[in-house]
Amino acid sequence: MMITIVLVGTGNVAQNLFQAFYNVADIEVKQVIGRNENHLSFAKNKVSINTDFNQIPTADVYILAVSDDAIALVAEKFKNSGGLIVHTSGGTALEVIGNQNRAGVFYPLQTFTKGKLISFDDIPICLEATNKTDLHLLQILGKSLSKTVELLNSEQRRTLHIAAVFVNNFTNYMYTIGEEICAEHMVDFKLLHPLIKETAAKLDDLSPKESQTGPAKRGDQKTLQNHLKFIENKHQRELYTLLSNAIKCKHG
Amino acid sequence: MMITIVLVGTGNVAQNLFQAFYNVADIEVKQVIGRNENHLSFAKNKVSINTDFNQIPTADVYILAVSDDAIALVAEKFKNSGGLIVHTSGGTALEVIGNQNRAGVFYPLQTFTKGKLISFDDIPICLEATNKTDLHLLQILGKSLSKTVELLNSEQRRTLHIAAVFVNNFTNYMYTIGEEICAEHMVDFKLLHPLIKETAAKLDDLSPKESQTGPAKRGDQKTLQNHLKFIENKHQRELYTLLSNAIKCKHG
Repeated sequence: MMITIVLVGTGNVAQNLFQAFYNVADIEVKQVIGRNENHLSFAKNKVSINTDFNQIPTADVYILAVSDDAIALVAEKFKNSGGLIVHTSGGTALEVIGNQNRAGVFYPLQTFTKGKLISFDDIPICLEATNKTDLHLLQILGKSLSKTVELLNSEQRRTLHIAAVFVNNFTNYMYTIGEEICAEHMVDFKLLHPLIKETAAKLDDLSPKESQTGPAKRGDQKTLQNHLKFIENKHQRELYTLLSNAIKCKHG
Repeated sequence: MMITIVLVGTGNVAQNLFQAFYNVADIEVKQVIGRNENHLSFAKNKVSINTDFNQIPTADVYILAVSDDAIALVAEKFKNSGGLIVHTSGGTALEVIGNQNRAGVFYPLQTFTKGKLISFDDIPICLEATNKTDLHLLQILGKSLSKTVELLNSEQRRTLHIAAVFVNNFTNYMYTIGEEICAEHMVDFKLLHPLIKETAAKLDDLSPKESQTGPAKRGDQKTLQNHLKFIENKHQRELYTLLSNAIKCKHG
């Protein structure tokens, strides 16, 4: 059975989803819709593109890969389409789609980078829908892209979204500080890349609590003091102290 | 030319270095020395093992893969050996080996896990030595294990060590918080593994400053407030606020 899709959005999530669905035999991306034609070039010459939200083709599923703030407004445009309307947001409740019985969520739990298309094979797709038939439809879509398809309610999805802020946004900020420290002392930050990757890879074998290492974990006051003497930047020193103390508390 | 090594230590670094050097044709691990015979089992039946620091065989290089605090004391035992004495510590100055002209550092910049042997191919080996001939000797050793061999002085090495605390120890702590948040709401932390790995993998294409994403980066107050309302744990909330503000300052 062929499933037809209309994709709304022009950002990194929309572009990645487009490319992924475009390559699935049993799924037809009927159209990509966005306000700005220039931003639709990724789909041009492959499928129909459209900037007019009042001219919407029929489809089984309308996927709104738009910013969180725009979901409610955009969903409104599709309320008479007859199709299933889903958003792709981790932090947005299902209800934001509007008070209708064919709403859903299709949330790929990953960080997408401008201009970089990645494989969906290993990306968890988190699903929710107001009715079972539509949930089943989303499961078919999810499984066409990924090995990992999960049914999560809006609270569970929000939990993941907040945890993702820590493991992605804040972790990336730790990388930023690491790069700053290297730059200040003319050391190549790239030397730390293998360490960064292994830190992530360790999770395959150990929980993060088990794999915690370092001077704070060991209670090695001498090294902690030496480091604090060496770090000149006040913000870096504050972070170093706060996080070291937190690790000491957790493991002490 | 065969290079002979005596390896001192029984921890994760010693075990990983042993296995790596043991597999190199032109290097002979003559002996592994440690205080506790039970902890030397990883080398038993492969090379000579020894618990007596007064019975040291002749070797070209003595590698002290011992804890930072023990380096000075252990180095003392080897001062009359005639060989090159090196430590493997990121945070320890070369001089700690003692006031002699055949001292060095052989620092593999990686996190080692108990019971997990990893390939040294991509691990940067950071070298330092008091004289050029010994530095050359260490370069041969380094290149026998890794593609990346770097000459760094003690200050540069300390810089990397501190940056490593941020990108490894503190990053792992972010993973720990992420796991806690998931556990509190009965969501499987494993769903975040692909995100964690992609966050690290992005560094191949973008600097961390460029790849920063999330509500703090976007200045998305609504999501920040929603998250803070949802997070019940006080420490998690404090961290969330502090790091979000730091990201806002840096990118605002």
